[in-house]
Amino acid sequence: MTLALASGPARHLYEELADDLAGLIAKGALRSGDRLPSVRRLSLQRSVSVSTVLQAYVLLESRGLVETRPQSGHYVRAMRALSAEEPRSPRRSSQATRVSVSDLVAKVYGAARDPSMVLLGAAHMSPALLPTESINRRLASVARTAGSAGVAYDIPPGLPALRRQIARRAAENGVAIGADDVVTTFGAMEALHLCLRAVTAPGDTVLVETPAYYGILQLMESLGLRVLEIPANPGTGIDLELTAAALREHDVAACLLVPSFSNPLGALMPDEAKQALVAMLARREIPLIEDDIYGDLHFDPGPRPRPAKAYDKQGLVMLCSSFSKTLAPGYRVGYAVPGRFRDQVERLKFAQTVGTATLPQMAVSDFLENGGYDRHLRRLRRALAAQVARVSEAIVEHFPPGTRISRPRGGFVLWVEMPPGKSALDLHARALRHKISIAPGPIFSAKQRFSSCIRVSAGFPWSDTVDRSIVRLGQIAREL
Amino acid sequence: MTLALASGPARHLYEELADDLAGLIAKGALRSGDRLPSVRRLSLQRSVSVSTVLQAYVLLESRGLVETRPQSGHYVRAMRALSAEEPRSPRRSSQATRVSVSDLVAKVYGAARDPSMVLLGAAHMSPALLPTESINRRLASVARTAGSAGVAYDIPPGLPALRRQIARRAAENGVAIGADDVVTTFGAMEALHLCLRAVTAPGDTVLVETPAYYGILQLMESLGLRVLEIPANPGTGIDLELTAAALREHDVAACLLVPSFSNPLGALMPDEAKQALVAMLARREIPLIEDDIYGDLHFDPGPRPRPAKAYDKQGLVMLCSSFSKTLAPGYRVGYAVPGRFRDQVERLKFAQTVGTATLPQMAVSDFLENGGYDRHLRRLRRALAAQVARVSEAIVEHFPPGTRISRPRGGFVLWVEMPPGKSALDLHARALRHKISIAPGPIFSAKQRFSSCIRVSAGFPWSDTVDRSIVRLGQIAREL
Repeated sequence: MTLALASGPARHLYEELADDLAGLIAKGALRSGDRLPSVRRLSLQRSVSVSTVLQAYVLLESRGLVETRPQSGHYVRAMRALSAEEPRSPRRSSQATRVSVSDLVAKVYGAARDPSMVLLGAAHMSPALLPTESINRRLASVARTAGSAGVAYDIPPGLPALRRQIARRAAENGVAIGADDVVTTFGAMEALHLCLRAVTAPGDTVLVETPAYYGILQLMESLGLRVLEIPANPGTGIDLELTAAALREHDVAACLLVPSFSNPLGALMPDEAKQALVAMLARREIPLIEDDIYGDLHFDPGPRPRPAKAYDKQGLVMLCSSFSKTLAPGYRVGYAVPGRFRDQVERLKFAQTVGTATLPQMAVSDFLENGGYDRHLRRLRRALAAQVARVSEAIVEHFPPGTRISRPRGGFVLWVEMPPGKSALDLHARALRHKISIAPGPIFSAKQRFSSCIRVSAGFPWSDTVDRSIVRLGQIAREL
Repeated sequence: MTLALASGPARHLYEELADDLAGLIAKGALRSGDRLPSVRRLSLQRSVSVSTVLQAYVLLESRGLVETRPQSGHYVRAMRALSAEEPRSPRRSSQATRVSVSDLVAKVYGAARDPSMVLLGAAHMSPALLPTESINRRLASVARTAGSAGVAYDIPPGLPALRRQIARRAAENGVAIGADDVVTTFGAMEALHLCLRAVTAPGDTVLVETPAYYGILQLMESLGLRVLEIPANPGTGIDLELTAAALREHDVAACLLVPSFSNPLGALMPDEAKQALVAMLARREIPLIEDDIYGDLHFDPGPRPRPAKAYDKQGLVMLCSSFSKTLAPGYRVGYAVPGRFRDQVERLKFAQTVGTATLPQMAVSDFLENGGYDRHLRRLRRALAAQVARVSEAIVEHFPPGTRISRPRGGFVLWVEMPPGKSALDLHARALRHKISIAPGPIFSAKQRFSSCIRVSAGFPWSDTVDRSIVRLGQIAREL
């Protein structure tokens, strides 16, 4: 075994080691089921510390390449997912277009209300992965002790204690803001809605990546906005050259992106790309609405990726996020950091919903301050990385040859491209008869592109039901 | 004393007796501070039952005409408020106009954030009048027991148990609907917002009463709507003849009203007027968005007034309400009953905020089912009637001669018209220096009419602070 160390500044030794091992796995030098050298042996072999090897193994595990078997050691995971290619991006941007995905979305999700349905399509997190008991207990506790403050309106910008916690965490991620820059909202969707309303008028054009989360497309549809869809790469997100070209050609009122672990691609824009995009938009004074709800769910060890907001010098980036993917979707607690548009967002929030519910804000604030949020996030990220790897493997194993699949480095959704000619809407319709619900590609585009793509969620622990459902989906896909 | 019984079908004996006594008070035959005959004596005098007399006295008390002194009997209350005239209505409708009250509202309320301010302007209910402890305890209880259902999304149309309670209560008020007709929302404001978005597009004209709650005007401003302001009478609400004339002249997309105890007038449209309005709009297929948040807060005994929705035969009335004025504003639980626009409202709700927070819905549902909501409402109504009477008296006593004041039969806000030439904005500015905040008339109109009017809230128990603040306001008003 020859392991050549890659070089490069500002990378940790364990990252380099992990990359080398990943390279060997990719080349087939290490194969599915192979046992990796023991930590001690590799440490001697490579003249690195035991802790460096351990960190490298943790990293590989988080990437879904390696699994630990108790009392036995580290093994190369089944690696079919890595042999599959990533889905392709469209080559061209669309013209600005009115959105009308709502009918299709309603049709797709109408069926999903059947409680016996296996929901492989919805980007919902299993409550089993959330600190359900702990957050509910905190809500119970503040409800018992808050007295009249608990029933009173909390008018915008929202609960000061929560805004302080949000600002503190943002600062840790390179976003230098204070509590006064934050407006709390009913989840990230209200934050996106308020930000869009603050900087656009009906008929305006908003630049988005494609594919994009259908909820965002529906929101734009409901606001009478036009969308300009710019192709995104499954690894690195929106194409900056095509973005630059589109900005030259179109009058764009705002840009709305999910730069860290986009939905459905799972793409992560590199730091330099985020920085370049922010600068490009700033030159034209175009606001960037940044949806960061998946940003805390990175699989790589170390700090989370910086939001694009970290590179915002002119107050043009409007950061939106929530605790729906990490704590409690049903609490509906989110926020916006709207930069120079803060006052407009605050007023729109008042006009729209008066204020965010008081006690849920208190409970989330309390959890952030005292609940071990970081410890919880670490556990959650490990679980999601493993689930994403497992679901990827199963898809590659059971779907027809030539199926492509994304390799997200965070979040919990997978984007699957079946071979040409296989219809995602057909797959969706037939799967429903087997009580399996998936999200077909066309709902992720105003142009209803992506006819052979589906989104599959890995937001639930692996189970026989999930296993059987993926086997069944694969069968249907082969038969299409 | 001669008491002649008025006649008329479908009126209770006690109502007739109360009206007779009220007539004697109005004529001065019974004067402030006079002791009324004992229940037993009046019962003998009038050959009616003791319980009829008691009910009449309760009714007079609820109207603020009579007060009970423990161990002593019933007395005619200080009656200055009744000698004051009601505020005048504008004589003409406005032309349809874009709204821009937000700047003025922000200026008015910016100062109100000072916690040392006495907030006589805000239509907030004192938590002391709400079942604070009981509703918070219920929330604590559902948070402890709901488990994963408590952290999960509750997607539209909202929690079934809550929708059933809402439908059951609506049926009691003459609105024949089922749980499936209800969409839960973040308070009445989100319900109004969703309904407006479902039936209007930016630039459309919406017919409203004037004066109208500034929050509604701000909402329309944020949606780019034009408003057509139709004068409302402080007693009976929007002028139907002027409404009919406006409908002939203008292309109206929707009508948004508060038919029961409007804000700021406190007007109650009689049943026949509601019915006529619904029919008039139905002939032109114009949706009526009915804001009913004060409808449960009637001062007269007996059932609450019917919502206009009770007369809706074509699914054109979109009923909106919440529990913010009766249970817990900070819970942000409200609802829409959007008639034939139900599906659009449900979809917009999903696009806008995904779903209403789960546990607050559970707590409110539990309170409605088991919490003695009706008992609480009875207590609340009595308290508000007394507070409204008391604040009215104080205003008439201390404000300059010629001041007019509304006589609401429900809700808890008063509309005060100072003599011509007295500026409400001046009063507002000077009062702020004394740490008193009121709501000046111009914020209640897109045309910024009502320059000498103010809204004063009676949503808080009487106190020395309130007393002193009204004395001070009166002084300032005299000096203007």
